[in-house]
Amino acid sequence: MLILYHAGLTQASIKVRLTLKEKGLAYESRFIRLMEQEHLSPGYLAINPDGQVPTLVHDGNVITETTVINEYLEDCFPEPPLRPADPVERARMRGWGQLVDEHLFHAMATLAWHQGVGPVLRKKDNVEIDRALARLPLPSKRQKWLKAVRAGFTAEELSNARDEIAFSLARMERALTAHTYLAGPAYSLADINVLSSVQRMPRWASDLMNATATPRVFTWLQRMLARPAVHETLSVSDEAPPLPPDAAAATPQL
Amino acid sequence: MLILYHAGLTQASIKVRLTLKEKGLAYESRFIRLMEQEHLSPGYLAINPDGQVPTLVHDGNVITETTVINEYLEDCFPEPPLRPADPVERARMRGWGQLVDEHLFHAMATLAWHQGVGPVLRKKDNVEIDRALARLPLPSKRQKWLKAVRAGFTAEELSNARDEIAFSLARMERALTAHTYLAGPAYSLADINVLSSVQRMPRWASDLMNATATPRVFTWLQRMLARPAVHETLSVSDEAPPLPPDAAAATPQL
Repeated sequence: MLILYHAGLTQASIKVRLTLKEKGLAYESRFIRLMEQEHLSPGYLAINPDGQVPTLVHDGNVITETTVINEYLEDCFPEPPLRPADPVERARMRGWGQLVDEHLFHAMATLAWHQGVGPVLRKKDNVEIDRALARLPLPSKRQKWLKAVRAGFTAEELSNARDEIAFSLARMERALTAHTYLAGPAYSLADINVLSSVQRMPRWASDLMNATATPRVFTWLQRMLARPAVHETLSVSDEAPPLPPDAAAATPQL
Repeated sequence: MLILYHAGLTQASIKVRLTLKEKGLAYESRFIRLMEQEHLSPGYLAINPDGQVPTLVHDGNVITETTVINEYLEDCFPEPPLRPADPVERARMRGWGQLVDEHLFHAMATLAWHQGVGPVLRKKDNVEIDRALARLPLPSKRQKWLKAVRAGFTAEELSNARDEIAFSLARMERALTAHTYLAGPAYSLADINVLSSVQRMPRWASDLMNATATPRVFTWLQRMLARPAVHETLSVSDEAPPLPPDAAAATPQL
């Protein structure tokens, strides 16, 4: 009934895996190895022509884009609710999704790709990677891979990414002063969507997000990590192997 | 009850103005002059600290981000419905919103800013503009203005923007082969959100979108323009003065 093509512990895949687990939904897990360009294999591109991961297949219907998938899951499986009933809180929830999709996801990806993914890919066969990337239809995504694989991002791009992260964290601090969760008094897709990026910060941006610099975000993150579904989603498991050793070993230095 | 701070005929403002008109909602129009940096005035930043336009204020609640505002309007004023009832079509609708927010909006803005906004702003007082831009909190938005105001975008950035537009148009052609509107058989927020970008293409990307290159998109656009609410939204009016003369006179050349 539900099949999830995903890449385990990556930002985008965590978003959807967590929503599925919070709703207690069983799904068939199909792991896609990004470092082997499996998301650009003809087989996967036949399912999702954008070559993006994750993809949800529900009774044969293909649903893509993490924020869209999470709202789709909410539409189809409304219990337990992860979307506030109040329209203003719901708009706030969607505003957080937008912040992640437009800014935070890319900013975190820039840091992680620069320090983790790039060094791994640079050891591989260039010709093969180029051939795979030529099958990636979205120009901006292709360029991100090429930057990570080749020269790395510029100092200005890395600095901009850190500015976007600092901006997002400041907004989170303000929101968490006003209410317990990001969209209001209740846990929602806002927290899930933002967590997917914030959970990488202890590795890639620990000077920006910590108990002193962002006390409310730090406490919120501890509260999130205490949720059984979050713990399960972020743990190494059969469906979520450890990230590539080089990526995991890279020391965040900017 | 409803107050809309907006910039008339700009991409982002068209999205929300059109939704309001399709739903027949009365609102108080407050026009923000972007070329005068009114969106970065202390008064406006007190309402929307991001300095982005439009902003909807509904019974005192401030709602920002166009896609979020449009879903909010649907949540509060469900008649006539602009969101499909079927979850798969609804996901498709949100996928189009995502495409606009992540790719198409920025691609069209890059072309329009390079050729229209930049030349207008470069005639103005640099010091005053710099002072205003320093108040824009989102780093990526600040950089976009600075690029438009100063050197303009690079040839590579302009070429990338055109690639993203071509990618979006190809996706539209495929969707419009399968159904009359972008998300399915019925007009929806997908069409509204995408129209906001496509309606600029006859000016800025006429070689990419025309009756020969993209026949289905072209026909869809004519069908959209025949809707009274679309015609009203895109027409010069009291709430939507003509775009700055320099911008309107700029010839698209790439």
